Amino acid sequence: MRWVRFSNGNGPVYGILEGDHIEEVSGDPFTGFERSRRTHALGDVKIEVPVIPRTFYCVGRNYAAHILERAAKRGETAILPDRPEVGYRAVNALIAHEENVVIPSDATEKVHYEGELVAVIGKKAKHLSEADALSCILGYTIGNDVSERTWQRSDRTFWRSKNTDTFKPMGPWIETDVDLDALQTTVRLNGETTTEFRTNEMLFGVGTFISTMTRYLTLYPGDVIWMGTDGDSPDLKAGDVVEIEISGIGLLRNKFVAEEPF
Amino acid sequence: MRWVRFSNGNGPVYGILEGDHIEEVSGDPFTGFERSRRTHALGDVKIEVPVIPRTFYCVGRNYAAHILERAAKRGETAILPDRPEVGYRAVNALIAHEENVVIPSDATEKVHYEGELVAVIGKKAKHLSEADALSCILGYTIGNDVSERTWQRSDRTFWRSKNTDTFKPMGPWIETDVDLDALQTTVRLNGETTTEFRTNEMLFGVGTFISTMTRYLTLYPGDVIWMGTDGDSPDLKAGDVVEIEISGIGLLRNKFVAEEPF
Repeated sequence: MRWVRFSNGNGPVYGILEGDHIEEVSGDPFTGFERSRRTHALGDVKIEVPVIPRTFYCVGRNYAAHILERAAKRGETAILPDRPEVGYRAVNALIAHEENVVIPSDATEKVHYEGELVAVIGKKAKHLSEADALSCILGYTIGNDVSERTWQRSDRTFWRSKNTDTFKPMGPWIETDVDLDALQTTVRLNGETTTEFRTNEMLFGVGTFISTMTRYLTLYPGDVIWMGTDGDSPDLKAGDVVEIEISGIGLLRNKFVAEEPF
Repeated sequence: MRWVRFSNGNGPVYGILEGDHIEEVSGDPFTGFERSRRTHALGDVKIEVPVIPRTFYCVGRNYAAHILERAAKRGETAILPDRPEVGYRAVNALIAHEENVVIPSDATEKVHYEGELVAVIGKKAKHLSEADALSCILGYTIGNDVSERTWQRSDRTFWRSKNTDTFKPMGPWIETDVDLDALQTTVRLNGETTTEFRTNEMLFGVGTFISTMTRYLTLYPGDVIWMGTDGDSPDLKAGDVVEIEISGIGLLRNKFVAEEPF
């Protein structure tokens, strides 16, 4: 099942996508819903961010190749994480499928994409074993962890390198029927494939993260966990279009534009 | 004016505290409200976390003495930050005034308090000058940035050292009429004063942070910014009661208890 959050004149509502049509629901997939029999053509609505998370978790350094490549570029020796440790991103930075990533006027040329699988929590969860960990998941969507690498290296925190407004595209929708081992992530820049990897070849998988996290913290419906990225990105500039496709989930597309003077 | 979020049988509602009585309102201080003429004695209600933030910002290393003392304890040379850089905390960890901080069974003895001023954003804001920065603030409350120092040093992120469930007491209410320069923070452990500092003697003040942050990001109503702490904490154990008082705002009190077996 595919959950789409969209607007069509009024405020955002949820619907179930079947083919090219959305059946609107009252309520939402987290607290309960009823089908309405009101349908919309997918092309007639504006797709919104699929969920505004209560807490926005994000895993860094979770694919060996990505860690090794980035360390080699800096002439450093890579150290692979020996345990799952989650980080955070900020809600202000979220944008939807087809919305524009705005590159600040003082950013350097080192603006990169990171194509990521996103786990969307559907049920309150604490103390889940690894065997039960996936039981709290509603479904999966796609994220682009846009990063300004010069700021990422020079700043003490990720506040502007990764959380500048518009730097966190997420969508287009939430797919509930997913075989993690079958997923393939493909990133295209202006139509050409620039990064490809098996989505589930993570150092620590979704279940390991959820089991470890819920030893100490409660996950809530609507929380999201971005699972990290593999490979490397070319430098992006205004006019570029980045598509992140994860087979079986969908395709997240965003154009990069220059900041207007303010 | 003091905004209290409380429950009294039903779900949380907002009210205005005058003396020992709360006048309940419909709505909230962020999107609009109407007075109801329903009043409650402060002692008859359960005080809730004053706001569930959309984004939970938290400043680290913002008082010179705190940085110098912690570095000296580790035998390291302190480096003071040369610019304001904000970090993040997680909503799962929030608890209210008089709720218990639960120390995980595998935590070390190095569990510490950090008494902090909290700025609560009332209006959407971007590109604020330093002169206008405080115009987006609804008011101020108090936070205790409880930290497990062994995990803080050994982990790559603050996920469990600072964001374990119950590690972020916030409250008791939001005070809108505040003279920042007049504030004094006092922390008491089991009734004895253990830390005292002038609240506004920060390396970078509230206005400087908001002006810098809004160059890159939009602040939204309900966002909170915890402003960092001064001084140092003794090791805390089950049974301890920590009170953080900021003159002119209020007093946040929480007991520390041991985790029950799960």
